[in-house]
Amino acid sequence: MSNNMNSFIGCESNYKNAGIVLYGIPFDNTTSFRPGTRFGSNAIRNESYGLEEYSVYQDSRLSDYAIHDAGDLECPFGDTSGSLSIIEKFSKKVVKDGKIPVALGGEHLVSYACIIPIAQKYPDLAVIHFDAHTDLRDDYLKQKFSHATVMRRISEIVKDKNIYQFGIRSGEKEEFDFAEAHTNMHKYDLEGLRGMLKKLKGIPVYFSLDLDVLDPSVFSGTGTPEPGGVSFKELHNAVLALKELNIVGADIVELSPHYDISGASTAAACKITREILLAIGGNINE
Amino acid sequence: MSNNMNSFIGCESNYKNAGIVLYGIPFDNTTSFRPGTRFGSNAIRNESYGLEEYSVYQDSRLSDYAIHDAGDLECPFGDTSGSLSIIEKFSKKVVKDGKIPVALGGEHLVSYACIIPIAQKYPDLAVIHFDAHTDLRDDYLKQKFSHATVMRRISEIVKDKNIYQFGIRSGEKEEFDFAEAHTNMHKYDLEGLRGMLKKLKGIPVYFSLDLDVLDPSVFSGTGTPEPGGVSFKELHNAVLALKELNIVGADIVELSPHYDISGASTAAACKITREILLAIGGNINE
Amino acid sequence: MSNNMNSFIGCESNYKNAGIVLYGIPFDNTTSFRPGTRFGSNAIRNESYGLEEYSVYQDSRLSDYAIHDAGDLECPFGDTSGSLSIIEKFSKKVVKDGKIPVALGGEHLVSYACIIPIAQKYPDLAVIHFDAHTDLRDDYLKQKFSHATVMRRISEIVKDKNIYQFGIRSGEKEEFDFAEAHTNMHKYDLEGLRGMLKKLKGIPVYFSLDLDVLDPSVFSGTGTPEPGGVSFKELHNAVLALKELNIVGADIVELSPHYDISGASTAAACKITREILLAIGGNINE
Amino acid sequence: MSNNMNSFIGCESNYKNAGIVLYGIPFDNTTSFRPGTRFGSNAIRNESYGLEEYSVYQDSRLSDYAIHDAGDLECPFGDTSGSLSIIEKFSKKVVKDGKIPVALGGEHLVSYACIIPIAQKYPDLAVIHFDAHTDLRDDYLKQKFSHATVMRRISEIVKDKNIYQFGIRSGEKEEFDFAEAHTNMHKYDLEGLRGMLKKLKGIPVYFSLDLDVLDPSVFSGTGTPEPGGVSFKELHNAVLALKELNIVGADIVELSPHYDISGASTAAACKITREILLAIGGNINE
Amino acid sequence: MSNNMNSFIGCESNYKNAGIVLYGIPFDNTTSFRPGTRFGSNAIRNESYGLEEYSVYQDSRLSDYAIHDAGDLECPFGDTSGSLSIIEKFSKKVVKDGKIPVALGGEHLVSYACIIPIAQKYPDLAVIHFDAHTDLRDDYLKQKFSHATVMRRISEIVKDKNIYQFGIRSGEKEEFDFAEAHTNMHKYDLEGLRGMLKKLKGIPVYFSLDLDVLDPSVFSGTGTPEPGGVSFKELHNAVLALKELNIVGADIVELSPHYDISGASTAAACKITREILLAIGGNINE
Amino acid sequence: MSNNMNSFIGCESNYKNAGIVLYGIPFDNTTSFRPGTRFGSNAIRNESYGLEEYSVYQDSRLSDYAIHDAGDLECPFGDTSGSLSIIEKFSKKVVKDGKIPVALGGEHLVSYACIIPIAQKYPDLAVIHFDAHTDLRDDYLKQKFSHATVMRRISEIVKDKNIYQFGIRSGEKEEFDFAEAHTNMHKYDLEGLRGMLKKLKGIPVYFSLDLDVLDPSVFSGTGTPEPGGVSFKELHNAVLALKELNIVGADIVELSPHYDISGASTAAACKITREILLAIGGNINE
Repeated sequence: MSNNMNSFIGCESNYKNAGIVLYGIPFDNTTSFRPGTRFGSNAIRNESYGLEEYSVYQDSRLSDYAIHDAGDLECPFGDTSGSLSIIEKFSKKVVKDGKIPVALGGEHLVSYACIIPIAQKYPDLAVIHFDAHTDLRDDYLKQKFSHATVMRRISEIVKDKNIYQFGIRSGEKEEFDFAEAHTNMHKYDLEGLRGMLKKLKGIPVYFSLDLDVLDPSVFSGTGTPEPGGVSFKELHNAVLALKELNIVGADIVELSPHYDISGASTAAACKITREILLAIGGNINE
Repeated sequence: MSNNMNSFIGCESNYKNAGIVLYGIPFDNTTSFRPGTRFGSNAIRNESYGLEEYSVYQDSRLSDYAIHDAGDLECPFGDTSGSLSIIEKFSKKVVKDGKIPVALGGEHLVSYACIIPIAQKYPDLAVIHFDAHTDLRDDYLKQKFSHATVMRRISEIVKDKNIYQFGIRSGEKEEFDFAEAHTNMHKYDLEGLRGMLKKLKGIPVYFSLDLDVLDPSVFSGTGTPEPGGVSFKELHNAVLALKELNIVGADIVELSPHYDISGASTAAACKITREILLAIGGNINE
Repeated sequence: MSNNMNSFIGCESNYKNAGIVLYGIPFDNTTSFRPGTRFGSNAIRNESYGLEEYSVYQDSRLSDYAIHDAGDLECPFGDTSGSLSIIEKFSKKVVKDGKIPVALGGEHLVSYACIIPIAQKYPDLAVIHFDAHTDLRDDYLKQKFSHATVMRRISEIVKDKNIYQFGIRSGEKEEFDFAEAHTNMHKYDLEGLRGMLKKLKGIPVYFSLDLDVLDPSVFSGTGTPEPGGVSFKELHNAVLALKELNIVGADIVELSPHYDISGASTAAACKITREILLAIGGNINE
Repeated sequence: MSNNMNSFIGCESNYKNAGIVLYGIPFDNTTSFRPGTRFGSNAIRNESYGLEEYSVYQDSRLSDYAIHDAGDLECPFGDTSGSLSIIEKFSKKVVKDGKIPVALGGEHLVSYACIIPIAQKYPDLAVIHFDAHTDLRDDYLKQKFSHATVMRRISEIVKDKNIYQFGIRSGEKEEFDFAEAHTNMHKYDLEGLRGMLKKLKGIPVYFSLDLDVLDPSVFSGTGTPEPGGVSFKELHNAVLALKELNIVGADIVELSPHYDISGASTAAACKITREILLAIGGNINE
Repeated sequence: MSNNMNSFIGCESNYKNAGIVLYGIPFDNTTSFRPGTRFGSNAIRNESYGLEEYSVYQDSRLSDYAIHDAGDLECPFGDTSGSLSIIEKFSKKVVKDGKIPVALGGEHLVSYACIIPIAQKYPDLAVIHFDAHTDLRDDYLKQKFSHATVMRRISEIVKDKNIYQFGIRSGEKEEFDFAEAHTNMHKYDLEGLRGMLKKLKGIPVYFSLDLDVLDPSVFSGTGTPEPGGVSFKELHNAVLALKELNIVGADIVELSPHYDISGASTAAACKITREILLAIGGNINE
Repeated sequence: MSNNMNSFIGCESNYKNAGIVLYGIPFDNTTSFRPGTRFGSNAIRNESYGLEEYSVYQDSRLSDYAIHDAGDLECPFGDTSGSLSIIEKFSKKVVKDGKIPVALGGEHLVSYACIIPIAQKYPDLAVIHFDAHTDLRDDYLKQKFSHATVMRRISEIVKDKNIYQFGIRSGEKEEFDFAEAHTNMHKYDLEGLRGMLKKLKGIPVYFSLDLDVLDPSVFSGTGTPEPGGVSFKELHNAVLALKELNIVGADIVELSPHYDISGASTAAACKITREILLAIGGNINE
């Protein structure tokens, strides 16, 4: 008689038993072009029922692991700092309770608040960042906290050169200069990923996936589609490769479902979410 | 920590305390033209948050009454009789527990299963039926149970002439002949409604609202849009008029949200659902 | 074994026996704003199966009359005068064979070619014109033949003051001045229609229906939606009123179905087409 | 050789000579449900070319008056107070230069900044407010400046009871109580308008038009469509009635064009903008 | 004077002379997620006119072969077994008349009925199956006949291990176990195809193409888009490779055109249909 | 105070100083299937603000070069020869003033008029043509000037074998025969491009890019989507390769934005336009 729970498929553990906590962040306050990622996490939950919970790629089921879907946080519209506090607080609780937080955006700025407590717990934290955009501006129209500055802000709370960026194909010249000096950036695609894996073996890793790293042919349902991105298979193979790492947190951001009338972008977001959860779950259980 | 409940706005009573039980029926098995009403109830819940729970028309709030949203029933695809059994069983339980069931479709055939236990409890049951279509065929492509035959089937379980039809503007000649003999039909619009109210004072009434009674300008998100329907204000005024009656059950059917890209049809379904719930709620509390 | 005929519902007479000949004109060469009416007639045929062929308003069926659907003419893209010749030729044949031609547009310029042979046969021909736009320019960007000049051209082949315009709410000042002098124009809506009917009793009448006379809430699937139009019921009642007249030809133009994602505009076009065919059919049979 | 000016049709006066200054405000920072009004003013300009610049209703042309289209202001995303300052500053300059500002939203909060300099110039300023929503909350999720609080904020800078609200059909109970005490509210529709006109003769009036006062059948392209609104003709007649008043400023807000795939909402916004400009223009010239 | 035939481009042979018979099956009764494939075959016919009938890949024209388009079968909504009988009967007639049947879906369950008479004629029949999904469940929500069980049912009427599956990337674990034991399954893509061709030389082959084998970037217009699929070129090359085989029947299923607003999915379905027809046609003529 | 200029991002040079002149041609008169490219150039300008003006691929900014955006030409609807004259005249002026013209379509026929003055200036002019379609018919439905004949017409004003075609995958047999004799055609993709570059070193080259060379997964927003095309990366790499050539003019045609609801096609058109402008700009400055 409680059929109106709305969880991601196969994520039906209670909070207490869960090793992984999935939560949504309906926040798109600083989106510069087409807004609407506030509807992303709910769309991912709703459409996850078009998927199987079993992955033939990983030969495992979501219900093999204890995953709790905590629903969406409530972020006040137009209040960026208030929203970031709410996100940080929730992430902190999950981390403190020894669970792995996996956030569904919302826009990319949310990653900053998600990472704060994780970076506090793991001073060596590495951040793997897949994106079309550098997100390395120091400010955007004078705003310090924006989805265009988020990796710059994160660079200030993790060690220098501990951010690994892939797929980047858009930004200002100054951002690429900053990357040269302070991050590890692999431009255009995900090809350099395997080489990096050895280096990160054993180190705690946060994985921030801006879905616009995908080509707009695959993923047009986003605020700033940037042609020339990776295919779904390339992204998927990269996620499978990450299984070798010690992932301690993750986010999947920038689905804007109202620009996805065909449903193809939301389906991509759902499937990659399942694969990330299984990749992390398999790792925990080992 | 349980933010992923997905209830209609303001319907957060538990089952036990509730006087009204709202539930969804994702069933569109017999839809003859454009399918997709299976997604109707979920869309209504999701988009209800674009509404206020307070109605200035009725000067009351949904939370003033104890309303439980029981979520969606699980109907097996392609199994019409199995689905009807599941619906009937749930409706029976709600009725037996002394609560008023309000169903969100799904297609119109679901009304038949919803009504069975109510007609058993109230032998004098009157059915008020708003629709563009007669729904009075004896069979449709040899199927006895179809959204095109539903009122014919209902006519077999309530007393002759106890169905009151409004807004009807499409059907076969034979259906209009049947209506002449066995129902009270008011064609094209809702104008004759007030005259009927006195007659039905005190009698138990089931209200079946096929949303395609609305003009497609208001409500295009449905399988068989039929031009020449009523405006939202006309429908709304009719619903307010029903407050004088003893409503013992209701359904709101035929929203097909994938044909509603603008969201206007879903917004209409949400608002009329709120108004019906408040109308019934006010009546119970008196 | 010939299921792939694509005719308007209920229009299955062969040409020889038919009293009415329906035909499509996929031509949108001179459309000034949003093109695409070339797809109009085919959409009307495809979606007519969402309708009943019986009309409760007129208590008659399309199959009560002998109506032939001749399919679409082939108009060369970009060749306005060639296309007009093809249309005129077909209209001429139908008229010569003693049948009533009813054209499905396509854009409004097609009316000119449809009318030529009818105006030749009936020197007193009156033209009833429902539209949002005057269509009375002498030229449009120097083009004499355009959907913005079509009624001006028609005014040159029928007697002065024999055009009756209704619903007009957009045009240049000069066009309204021309109307003052040379047509009977009723601005904004259809209210003056009944007064005109007596005057036209017995006179041969051509009915040209530009569907954008409807308000865009009802009919957004058109090239130049003009807010402030009539409701479907107003248009429908007007069509029923025309039953008293001697309609010798008609057209229904300006559906652009690619701007009608919900299908509501196409449904309106289908239903009004059925009602016009029945209105003409009833008249012939008397 | 400067064909890439993008002005509203017929608004081609330079700033210096202009009596009316039209300007766009691409701001939707506080939108609570579906965002995207940031794209409204640009859509209105682009689609204005589907209109005539001549209005048969008012028998006048936009080019009969000197109207300057100043383009869009640049509002920093996510910075509400910074954006409001920019708007206020521009409005102030226009007012100081003796011209009438007419703003195209963007969301409704922009009205507050537009009005400040006008209220300073005219201490008796009356505000006529057409909307579906009260917009009278004291705060929204703790935010003082929001499109849900805008009329409350405006009530603090004009005299008590100097706000005249029409069409209101949604809000919280507390907002309606506030209206009872501090504004003149006419619920649901625009019928009481004529009675108010005499009272306001000669008094400086600001006209704030939230387009969602229109029924979603007419205007679904907005963030929070609220069924049960007025028709285009009702709105249009009200605008014509306002010609008798001394309008000293106006805004037209809440078009969200990405929810308007058919273009019908944008067409409605364009036409009503033309009619408002002509109504004001006629008044100035007298 | 019979322009309203609606055939796939270049398929204008009469039935008697035809070597290949194309027919549509508007059936989507058991679709589990997004319905609408009932509109697939008609959309493919309508949009085929955006193609050339000549293929530069195969240097041949559809009109080089005698292909008859028999239009759509009439399947009663909601009656699965009745519909399957109708399909089987038509397929049987075509096979008996010595022609090759090529079906346009509709959903995948139709393949079962299409194959029955072919499997009866050719006891060694091999089935090549391209799909994203295994379709190997024994039942789906207790239904034995469903688009999720269709290959399981087919496995019961052809010899063990005679089904060759390609592109499969979604299913339950139990289905992959069944495949291991009873079919030849190549997961994820079409790469193993060439190796299989030699093995099948001379053996009668049925080709069942579920278009969702394509990546949703190419083909989002389907009920259950499954990311990670093949590109159009990969599918096309595979079809060209099949020219070496003795194809005795084929189907192309699961286009749901109402989810294909851009038309790209329908265009893909049209082009692959042409290429399959030419591949079979070339083979017959040799 | 002149914020309503609507230029492609970073193209803000005045005409006099400019080395490159970008201009739009809203012409789609001869489009054979889905019309609407008349809205292409304006959409490209509007959406260019979703891009950066800096390209990391070329490490340069649009503002590094002097590029003037001249806005859209005014082409009379339905008047093909008049429109071609207007285009030719503008192109001639730009060429005469020693600047490089880059046109944004509109449909492909515009290339013919753009090229005439360039071919007059450079008798050795080579034309590089990327397209899905041959465009080599001698006439189309008897029209000599059509987007289906444009390369044939161009073949008549440049030297034999001076047209280099890539990506071609659709046409009639006769067109491919013509190509064999009179052009250099590389079918299906862009692979042969590098081999051609040496040959063309130093020769003046016109680059005509029909965006439907892209696969419909990338670019569905066009009149005649043809599956099996190139990826964005393939096209982009080809454009970068062209940097070695002496480009003296270019066009980018066939975006039909009303078929691009997601915006992905328009984003692709914007980005490739930026890359072409930078490639040409870099070349001039050397």
